Amino acid sequence: MVYILDQRRLPLDVQVVECHRYEGVADAIKGMAVRGAPAIGIAAAYGIALASRQVAASDDTVAGPAAAETGSVGDALRFIEHAASVFAKTRPTAVNLFWAIERMMRVARSVTGDAAALSAALEREARAIDEEDVRHNREMGEHGSRLVRDGASILTHCNAGALATGGHGTALGVIRTAWEQGKKVRVYADETRPLLQGARITAWELQKDGIPVTVLADNMAGYLMRLGRVDMVIVGADRIAANGDVANKIGTYSLAVLAREHGIPFYVAAPGSTVDLRIPDGAAIPIEERSPEEVTHVAGVRVAPEGVEVFNPAFDVTPAALITAIITEKGIIRPPLAEGLREVFSTPE
Amino acid sequence: MVYILDQRRLPLDVQVVECHRYEGVADAIKGMAVRGAPAIGIAAAYGIALASRQVAASDDTVAGPAAAETGSVGDALRFIEHAASVFAKTRPTAVNLFWAIERMMRVARSVTGDAAALSAALEREARAIDEEDVRHNREMGEHGSRLVRDGASILTHCNAGALATGGHGTALGVIRTAWEQGKKVRVYADETRPLLQGARITAWELQKDGIPVTVLADNMAGYLMRLGRVDMVIVGADRIAANGDVANKIGTYSLAVLAREHGIPFYVAAPGSTVDLRIPDGAAIPIEERSPEEVTHVAGVRVAPEGVEVFNPAFDVTPAALITAIITEKGIIRPPLAEGLREVFSTPE
Repeated sequence: MVYILDQRRLPLDVQVVECHRYEGVADAIKGMAVRGAPAIGIAAAYGIALASRQVAASDDTVAGPAAAETGSVGDALRFIEHAASVFAKTRPTAVNLFWAIERMMRVARSVTGDAAALSAALEREARAIDEEDVRHNREMGEHGSRLVRDGASILTHCNAGALATGGHGTALGVIRTAWEQGKKVRVYADETRPLLQGARITAWELQKDGIPVTVLADNMAGYLMRLGRVDMVIVGADRIAANGDVANKIGTYSLAVLAREHGIPFYVAAPGSTVDLRIPDGAAIPIEERSPEEVTHVAGVRVAPEGVEVFNPAFDVTPAALITAIITEKGIIRPPLAEGLREVFSTPE
Repeated sequence: MVYILDQRRLPLDVQVVECHRYEGVADAIKGMAVRGAPAIGIAAAYGIALASRQVAASDDTVAGPAAAETGSVGDALRFIEHAASVFAKTRPTAVNLFWAIERMMRVARSVTGDAAALSAALEREARAIDEEDVRHNREMGEHGSRLVRDGASILTHCNAGALATGGHGTALGVIRTAWEQGKKVRVYADETRPLLQGARITAWELQKDGIPVTVLADNMAGYLMRLGRVDMVIVGADRIAANGDVANKIGTYSLAVLAREHGIPFYVAAPGSTVDLRIPDGAAIPIEERSPEEVTHVAGVRVAPEGVEVFNPAFDVTPAALITAIITEKGIIRPPLAEGLREVFSTPE
């Protein structure tokens, strides 16, 4: 069983999705009950582990001749490969998802023994991915907090917090660590339409930690900068290309342009699992376009007229040239980002 | 009686507010049942005319010794002056409001005759302001449409349409006139948080005219520009300072920065009643900050956690340097805007 905190109605409605089958986990990712690049990687990893239990425990195999050999490793592996392909189709942009799937499948393919051994190995690996992510968040926090001065006003977008990760957070992890060090920061949280992860989740996470937080509509960030009330911008990432271009929640690109216009440093906090050195630049990153209803409706209430056309990309790409530095678990990477990323992440761990 | 179409729940809920007293009109402006710089000027003008009827018809005068002399012009004028001061406190940013109030009060003070004559003169003046606005919108449309090429993709923000004016619209007036000329344009309408005038009203107005319209969340506009899908930006204005700085709906400034970043022309369409030559620059324009609930709630549903702080300016200021041209009823004013504005608008009509 995999339990997923449903983030879609947070903070007003706290519900947990119980997934008895991997398909439930895949649906939770697709429907954004769980979101955030590292978190969906972790969810997929647990989902694949769950698939291995399904096959170990039942006749829940891929249909076909192999279906008879329930319990065999070959059979289980085929079922798990199928589950992996289902997870790979849930969301296209965040590379952490594909990274976690690949890592799980490497383990799956290397296991010797029966289906139970396979399942145990996959559970161990999913847990390792989860725990590593939290550790990496903490390390990012240590590195990144050096960039945060006492009294800083920090603008963030969407949610790159505990709920987007295994815990602690990427962008919010940096802010949390600075706060733990006694730095009196203030966070401005863009509400982040269409799904309002900033207003709902970031504000909620920070409130719980007692960190001062002010929510604003996305279109207010530029004016806030112009008023001199933003010292730095920190955001998370869904995929970082080899040249340092960063895909992140829609609206990030505009913030980066505005930050440069106002001479405000613009930081991206992301673990190595978000770095995709196989992709040369941002133009090659697939950008998910989601359903029009996310824009025409808010909290289930229709706000736009029936039948109107909608533009609803879930992400955009911020060119490397607009990024002051990338905060990773291995340290702060400064321009030229391409060189830094290659140096730090081109050798497998 | 003044009838006001309540714009707060459009397009889903079409309701008319019936105002028997000027206080109802003032509440409708303050509560944004009617909004849009020219429209609130017109509403205040009708509201002052309504006040003059109240005093002509009843003992509805300002309390004090004068209250006994019901029906006298002096008494009526005092009541109307009071009503004008109530309208002046409804909203601070759009100068059209103050422009209309001043114009009405000039008429009020110049009338000779009894309270009925005063009331008749004020009704005539309110109607003149309304009709002039529609005519000016048409003239703006004629001038501005010369800037719109056939097939253009036009981004607009908030609602600068028929419902923001006496009719036809400022920014949307330009687009409508281009469309009437047979130019196949497409409009991208920023939804315009917090009150979603773009998603609700602009999309609705354009749909009714059959003009292709696509709604997007405000934070998507930068990415849309980067994709090369925006040929020009046209917005309205709430107040234009002598140097050409423009106060308009929050988010306009960010769009102007983004437009320049992408080499996209940025136009402001506004009538002379929006130009405030007494104010040297944008820094002197009062920016209204509205209630936190506009951000924490959408369509009556809470989305942000209880007790969270909110930044909710209703407007921002776009510096003259970011504006390609201002489209007015007297022609297109190009930089240097200060010179052009002075030339065109410094002599009273």
